[in-house]
Amino acid sequence: MQKQNNTVELLEQVLGIKFTNKSILKVALTHSSFANQKKKVEYNERLEYLGDAVLELIITEHLFKNCSDKSEGALTKIRSLIVCENSLYEIAQNLYLGKYMLMSKGEELTGGRERSSILADCVEAVIAAIYLDKGLEVARKFIIDNFQDIIERAIDNKIILDYKTKLQEVIQSKGEVSINYNMLKSEGPAHRPTFEVQLVIDGENQSQGIGSSKKEAEQNAAKNMLTKMEMKYE
Amino acid sequence: MQKQNNTVELLEQVLGIKFTNKSILKVALTHSSFANQKKKVEYNERLEYLGDAVLELIITEHLFKNCSDKSEGALTKIRSLIVCENSLYEIAQNLYLGKYMLMSKGEELTGGRERSSILADCVEAVIAAIYLDKGLEVARKFIIDNFQDIIERAIDNKIILDYKTKLQEVIQSKGEVSINYNMLKSEGPAHRPTFEVQLVIDGENQSQGIGSSKKEAEQNAAKNMLTKMEMKYE
Repeated sequence: MQKQNNTVELLEQVLGIKFTNKSILKVALTHSSFANQKKKVEYNERLEYLGDAVLELIITEHLFKNCSDKSEGALTKIRSLIVCENSLYEIAQNLYLGKYMLMSKGEELTGGRERSSILADCVEAVIAAIYLDKGLEVARKFIIDNFQDIIERAIDNKIILDYKTKLQEVIQSKGEVSINYNMLKSEGPAHRPTFEVQLVIDGENQSQGIGSSKKEAEQNAAKNMLTKMEMKYE
Repeated sequence: MQKQNNTVELLEQVLGIKFTNKSILKVALTHSSFANQKKKVEYNERLEYLGDAVLELIITEHLFKNCSDKSEGALTKIRSLIVCENSLYEIAQNLYLGKYMLMSKGEELTGGRERSSILADCVEAVIAAIYLDKGLEVARKFIIDNFQDIIERAIDNKIILDYKTKLQEVIQSKGEVSINYNMLKSEGPAHRPTFEVQLVIDGENQSQGIGSSKKEAEQNAAKNMLTKMEMKYE
């Protein structure tokens, strides 16, 4: 685990934003498991609640202004592809947020730094920290810069939600092959398990995936395979 | 139906806001039924989509800052009582929005100017119009001023969602009485009916309620009775 002050400064560099109140960014990076170990340490859950609303407004306004031909129903559907755990997880990975987060040793040992839900929440908390410290326009710039690629894919209907089905379509278009997902291991406490699966195509190990459910691990293995095949955004 | 330009100016006075771009307020007041009659008339559905996100952020931030003792879960629950059709309908009534809306004669004849869903959507569209024309801070002031009472009731857990049950509790605490809801009329097209019911207590007509379903009309009759009894916010 990184030293706290150092962590905040390093992340400021990654974000390209110098905080006036650095403690708010520290709170955004603090997972409840870390706070639960200490007394009077604030964690990022309330910031996540605010950040979600900031993100929702910025994305809504962006779609409203840039998709003037689309109905409210179409805009709502596009937004749901942008403001969701999958997309937020992607942003968190781009920013290496897992590296900067403060969490308990126990959480870390069960894969907390790679857990999609924890990282997605952290992105929203960081957005709230930017909004509270720097205002709406800086938050807007941060969001649009970081979500640009996801926004474009969502508008162009290129976000794949079911990677397993997509992989099957792509692979079997080239002829009949066997696709199997084998469980490698499951670990962690019962209420917070982590699963790791291996994707085996025609008897050969091709990719792996981790997730908080068997289904999520399989989807991630399929997603990794599609990336490997450079089919991700086809 | 009021003349359009006049309508916008009258509403500006009610809102206490002078719009730079008056046409955006006119769009906010335009129901789809009005636009469907004419060519190239914009209606308020897309503005409603944006206004909902503006309202959500302002209320979220207000609760985040003013309820520092409450968890994310508690804040989400309180927010759902504030950002909902019932509350928006109450604001619409306070602003007499139904009077200013542009809608088709047909919609008007089937009770459109009193329809809870139409009025609630219009409030969100007006919020978006204020946000686009005047920015976030003017929108925030408008929202906090107009929602103050509802926000306080939501925080104090004084919002009654089931008026029929509440009325029954209040009345029967004073002894056994009969409570009946009698249908007075139902009118309008099959896909958009309006119901009017009469609340009869111990054989005496006490209040009436209108709604787009029998259930909603009964709830409104009970709500009106509670208001009459000055028990609304007890």
